[in-house]
Amino acid sequence: MSSIKIYAPATVANVVCGFDIIGFALQDPNDEMYMRLTDQPGVVIKSLDDYNLPTAPEKNVAGAALLALLEEVPGVGFEVEIRKNIKPGSGIGSSAASAAGAVVGANALLNNRFNRDDLVRFAMFGEKVASGVKHADNIAPCIFGGFTLIRSIFPLDIIPLSAPPLHVTVVHPQIEVRTADARSILKQKVLLKDAIRQWGNIGGLVAGLTKGDYGLIGRSLEDVIIEPVRSILIPGFDELKQSCMEAGALGGGISGSGPSVFMLSESQAKAKELESIMSALYTRIGIDFHTYVTTVNNGGCRVEAV
Amino acid sequence: MSSIKIYAPATVANVVCGFDIIGFALQDPNDEMYMRLTDQPGVVIKSLDDYNLPTAPEKNVAGAALLALLEEVPGVGFEVEIRKNIKPGSGIGSSAASAAGAVVGANALLNNRFNRDDLVRFAMFGEKVASGVKHADNIAPCIFGGFTLIRSIFPLDIIPLSAPPLHVTVVHPQIEVRTADARSILKQKVLLKDAIRQWGNIGGLVAGLTKGDYGLIGRSLEDVIIEPVRSILIPGFDELKQSCMEAGALGGGISGSGPSVFMLSESQAKAKELESIMSALYTRIGIDFHTYVTTVNNGGCRVEAV
Repeated sequence: MSSIKIYAPATVANVVCGFDIIGFALQDPNDEMYMRLTDQPGVVIKSLDDYNLPTAPEKNVAGAALLALLEEVPGVGFEVEIRKNIKPGSGIGSSAASAAGAVVGANALLNNRFNRDDLVRFAMFGEKVASGVKHADNIAPCIFGGFTLIRSIFPLDIIPLSAPPLHVTVVHPQIEVRTADARSILKQKVLLKDAIRQWGNIGGLVAGLTKGDYGLIGRSLEDVIIEPVRSILIPGFDELKQSCMEAGALGGGISGSGPSVFMLSESQAKAKELESIMSALYTRIGIDFHTYVTTVNNGGCRVEAV
Repeated sequence: MSSIKIYAPATVANVVCGFDIIGFALQDPNDEMYMRLTDQPGVVIKSLDDYNLPTAPEKNVAGAALLALLEEVPGVGFEVEIRKNIKPGSGIGSSAASAAGAVVGANALLNNRFNRDDLVRFAMFGEKVASGVKHADNIAPCIFGGFTLIRSIFPLDIIPLSAPPLHVTVVHPQIEVRTADARSILKQKVLLKDAIRQWGNIGGLVAGLTKGDYGLIGRSLEDVIIEPVRSILIPGFDELKQSCMEAGALGGGISGSGPSVFMLSESQAKAKELESIMSALYTRIGIDFHTYVTTVNNGGCRVEAV
């Protein structure tokens, strides 16, 4: 039977003001997955990396997503090999990449019988394994590519947003921030006046993206609700952000629930300059880190024959 | 000296999910204003209608807006005659029309020395006289025309939003809802999960407007925070909304802080059908009312020589 390879990109969720609703896909890094359709019902997973993630399908994010998909396709199964290049816990959608890549690959092997909304729905079962919550803010851009808005999660309503060319710098300080912890420190209630300020910025970000207005995008990348609480979990965050803004970043903040931090810029030169700033800061404060200088991935998961 | 006439349109603020940040201008009704530049510093206001609004400039919304403008233009003054066709307290931006019309007229008489952001800033002094709060969600669309987003009020950041053709039906039940009351019944804190749902809808509304996607506009016109609280002040609201939605309205809700209710549709025929539904309901429950079937006004205040 035919065999395929899938590149499943890292993603940035939340995007400062867009907590739980806006995300975008990165050109790099990508998880690499190899998949085959079999006539043995069920899912067999093999890991090609050293992360020791569970390979029992129901405990594996790719496996759980595929099991959800297989409930609608009886009589077949999948063999999956996964090389995770996106470090688990980095805050750039590692679990989403595995879950999204698996269902995009499965759909290719099944002659594209599902639409992208279906695939998001299946992949969310993978996110539930990873974090206990069926969220789609990384899954949606991983599958759709580009920027996506989750207007509603139940019922699922994903809106692809056009955007001008953007360069992205990401730094992943090698500390652990558990998604569950990052969620539990949030207050369940917010001030109406803060919510209003946040929705002004969300409207501004969506308008800025669709108009291709870099200035408006930059002004809208402000978060008065989540960032002030969560940023305390990321050493050096305030200084990092201030230095990047002074250097000419459009804006940026915590990627997902962290610890990665991303910054957007209009040029690759600026994105590289920000990388230097990030590297210098984490070198100075003595925390191991990894950086990426990349762009927005407008295609989402990519499938090729092997 | 030259004399001009200004048509200052009614406006719908809040636009369901866009509390305090989104508004749009209506083709009808319009306040009519006549203005002359004089070399007598100060503002003289004359009313041409029967509303008995204060004519002392500092107590009149047009006057207060003009006094704010005149602080930056010493040595001149204005004579203003106002015929209010937009009933005060109707919830379709009556005070904003007077304030915006006055400063747009003044700017025309002063050879357009101010930009539109300046005019909004001056006109907000009029809103402060009317409601005690310097808000811009009616002022901005009245001056800019079309749909506007207030990304931020301090500092002022107004974003014009493109939109597809839309028909608007408004019903003004002749009851009194004071803006201050409508504001005081709101809770100061909201659930984060409700805020997230609201910002998904705001993103959806802005995306729907700029993409010209009627379906998305309709789905996004949902308000889980303000409408459930404020709608109790408007007799018949729930039945009115449900009947209009079943008849094919895109969506709608309370205009500003009420009591007017607006509905959007894709065609004039549908807008007229909704007017019939509204009329039948308020006739049945025995509340006097006035209706408008109109479109979005993309030009804002209009000035002509007289």
